[in-house]
Amino acid sequence: MTTLQDGTSTEQELADVLGAADAAAAELRSLPGAARAAALRRAADAMDAAAGDLVPLAHQETSLPVRPRLAGELGRTTFQLRLLAEVVEEGSYLEVTLDSPDPDWPAGGRPDVRRMLRPVGPVLNFAASNFPFAFSVAGGDTAAALAAGCPVVVKANPGHPAVSALTGSLVADALTAAGLPAGSLAVVYGEEIGRAALVDPRIRAGTFTGSPAGGRALFDIASSRPDPIPFYAEMGSVNPAFVTPPAAASRATEIADGYLGSFTLGTGQFCTKPGLLFVPAGAAETFESHLVSELASRPATRLLNDRIAGGYERRLAALTAHPAVTVLHAGASGVDGSAPTLLGVSAADLLAHHEELAAECFGPTSIVVRYASDDEALACARSFTGELSATVQGEGDDPLAAELVAELSTRAGRVLWNGWPTGIAVTYAMHHGGPFPATTSALHTSVGTTSLRRFLQPVTYQNMPQSLLPEPLRDGNPLGVPRRVDGVLTTR
Amino acid sequence: MTTLQDGTSTEQELADVLGAADAAAAELRSLPGAARAAALRRAADAMDAAAGDLVPLAHQETSLPVRPRLAGELGRTTFQLRLLAEVVEEGSYLEVTLDSPDPDWPAGGRPDVRRMLRPVGPVLNFAASNFPFAFSVAGGDTAAALAAGCPVVVKANPGHPAVSALTGSLVADALTAAGLPAGSLAVVYGEEIGRAALVDPRIRAGTFTGSPAGGRALFDIASSRPDPIPFYAEMGSVNPAFVTPPAAASRATEIADGYLGSFTLGTGQFCTKPGLLFVPAGAAETFESHLVSELASRPATRLLNDRIAGGYERRLAALTAHPAVTVLHAGASGVDGSAPTLLGVSAADLLAHHEELAAECFGPTSIVVRYASDDEALACARSFTGELSATVQGEGDDPLAAELVAELSTRAGRVLWNGWPTGIAVTYAMHHGGPFPATTSALHTSVGTTSLRRFLQPVTYQNMPQSLLPEPLRDGNPLGVPRRVDGVLTTR
Repeated sequence: MTTLQDGTSTEQELADVLGAADAAAAELRSLPGAARAAALRRAADAMDAAAGDLVPLAHQETSLPVRPRLAGELGRTTFQLRLLAEVVEEGSYLEVTLDSPDPDWPAGGRPDVRRMLRPVGPVLNFAASNFPFAFSVAGGDTAAALAAGCPVVVKANPGHPAVSALTGSLVADALTAAGLPAGSLAVVYGEEIGRAALVDPRIRAGTFTGSPAGGRALFDIASSRPDPIPFYAEMGSVNPAFVTPPAAASRATEIADGYLGSFTLGTGQFCTKPGLLFVPAGAAETFESHLVSELASRPATRLLNDRIAGGYERRLAALTAHPAVTVLHAGASGVDGSAPTLLGVSAADLLAHHEELAAECFGPTSIVVRYASDDEALACARSFTGELSATVQGEGDDPLAAELVAELSTRAGRVLWNGWPTGIAVTYAMHHGGPFPATTSALHTSVGTTSLRRFLQPVTYQNMPQSLLPEPLRDGNPLGVPRRVDGVLTTR
Repeated sequence: MTTLQDGTSTEQELADVLGAADAAAAELRSLPGAARAAALRRAADAMDAAAGDLVPLAHQETSLPVRPRLAGELGRTTFQLRLLAEVVEEGSYLEVTLDSPDPDWPAGGRPDVRRMLRPVGPVLNFAASNFPFAFSVAGGDTAAALAAGCPVVVKANPGHPAVSALTGSLVADALTAAGLPAGSLAVVYGEEIGRAALVDPRIRAGTFTGSPAGGRALFDIASSRPDPIPFYAEMGSVNPAFVTPPAAASRATEIADGYLGSFTLGTGQFCTKPGLLFVPAGAAETFESHLVSELASRPATRLLNDRIAGGYERRLAALTAHPAVTVLHAGASGVDGSAPTLLGVSAADLLAHHEELAAECFGPTSIVVRYASDDEALACARSFTGELSATVQGEGDDPLAAELVAELSTRAGRVLWNGWPTGIAVTYAMHHGGPFPATTSALHTSVGTTSLRRFLQPVTYQNMPQSLLPEPLRDGNPLGVPRRVDGVLTTR
């Protein structure tokens, strides 16, 4: 563990951390998955046991409410560690594939070839501001990399350095107590130190959760290294939500309430916040008047920190100053934070000014977009290129809804029906990703059990003696993992 | 199909091709996998039926021998199309994952979430020079992208434009005859046209097989787009092969013969050619004298074309001029092509001049490296960072062999035991890839049935009605594909 010194780690501290991570990578590769699973559980236990210290510290540093938010987020984080431990034990993530020798295999015969995925090596994780547990030091990216067998260097988010340090020391101690090598997890501090780590040849992959500008800048550094490495940045998203005419006719109030709850959750600081609600022009008045009346009693709540509050105020000022935008409700801002703001725009104006209006506003503001026809709603859906989520509020037999789902499913990583995108369940089938600019890699997820795949690379062994094969590839399936044998998938 | 005009497509032709590919992408997404499988088989049949035209044309353009090489390569190419058709029908590649609703799921309950992989959209494939069928217009990258449901634009290799055009028209016709949309496959010509295609927003992924400089330049273009896209470049590799002392003692002649056959195969123009053979210093004389004596009778054979022959001569001249290098046998070069050349170097010199000596020489030359100790052999193994393959020639109880396999399996995509790396079987477990500089993406392969994964992105549907779900995600498993349900893998 690097100690916190004036907000930044020293170059010597970084050198020590990278050296330890590199040494740990070799050791982790040779440890069985069961050892990593046990260590992940021990880390989860250590965090749960320290909830009484971690949660108040996170509250102090982020202004996020203790209950249900931070206590719940800590629970989600430790559940995630435990679920990934199960994934490691189950073994499908290894993608074990065996082909037996076959002289008659077309195009020259088939040797004995055996493939599995193996850890890429040390991972550098740039932690997020808005989830001090779930997307920070021991959050999803760290958990996935450790589960895959990769040491992790976390570049702490400057918004919560103390909770980062405490989490780091708790988890690093738990991992080594469970038998993982020292250097399996370390935390470093400071932007320049983070960039220096990113160009170090020992770092084999990077992760990031944060702003589009920050994510793109780090992606560019990673891609332009002499030896480019994958950089998985999960960036901003505007998460469009569409209400079809039948849904607006039958459930306007219920939909408006759900939307309001979702875009104001966590003071609007969710990457899945619905930033645009598309409603039929004929029903717009119903939605807007209900929303404005509900917003009147909504209190101000604090943003994460002054930097984020400042960014929010600037972005909101730009939006409200835009000639196409109507302010439906202006939330008050002051020492107690910011109350939610609701804006309005026509679909035609949104299409004409997409780049300015359909970009993320990180904070408690959203825009109601009035569309004049089904065709205009579809044109709006097609105007998005990469979103973390997209939502359709529709009814059973609703031709527009079907077309919207089809369009949005090529443009968003997750498509929701009659729900709201904030709150991402940690499950087997979850995908938290999407085409650029939602992320820098449309192929992979940062939440859910398939998140491990980002940190694994295939290796094939050809005609290798049993004793030199990794255990999962040996005859008789000693670890009992699912395998594909001569093309046939077997569950045990 | 674009017509060939003075060696390059026009901008208008490219615009037409990209427009057609974009339109095809939407149609392909909605077609069932079975339709693509049938189309891949029809394309394979069309190529086999045209072997009498394709093979002589390829011979004329590449100087590669008709038999067994080109006839065999065509067979490999059509087999690959048929094997990927089976993969599409089997359905595992979709990674279907279903989570049922569970209010008690930790951290807030679990909605109904269903995940599958879907095609990324149009793929641009820069074809290789050295395999006019297997890594060209209808080669592995094209087959994988089509199998995944992505239209393909091939940038033809300038070394075999006529066979590219003929393959393109045969396969495009077969695909449309089988019911795929026009625009599913097209061929374009010219370097500038290729670069223009690569920055077009409709292209969603790129592939390349060729030189490190070419692959890196295109990777940089793809990564620096306003919307970066994945670019899978399979580049040069030196494919080190290590002979342990026990193996040298018991099988020197057999090993030398295998090595000679492998590094001269196809006039040394395989990306998996063993470019370095590490032998114990004490046995070096045995290896070298046998190799030199065998090489005396080896005839000159033609390289693919003048550009490649020129590049080979320049690279060979630089190697032979290097003060650390001994010329063990100088192959004659003339109008009939180049006879194999064998060079020698000490392991100490290789380590000291790794960048100059351990870089690919594309043509019939390889280097014998004499190592003085097991430690020196291991140091040499550790000096590689990314190789397509690495080979160990060892004996049963051979401690050096075990250490070499462990080191090389983190540095090469495929590790062979007592074999030779040229000739890559197209199978389920094959991996043709490796860390940079072997490729630009250590996570993925360009050969084998998992090659589809490069062209697929996950989408998760949350609480979606049955009628709006893609068929593979619906209740009752209507397509009978393997699925993970509530965390449990089921084969049907």
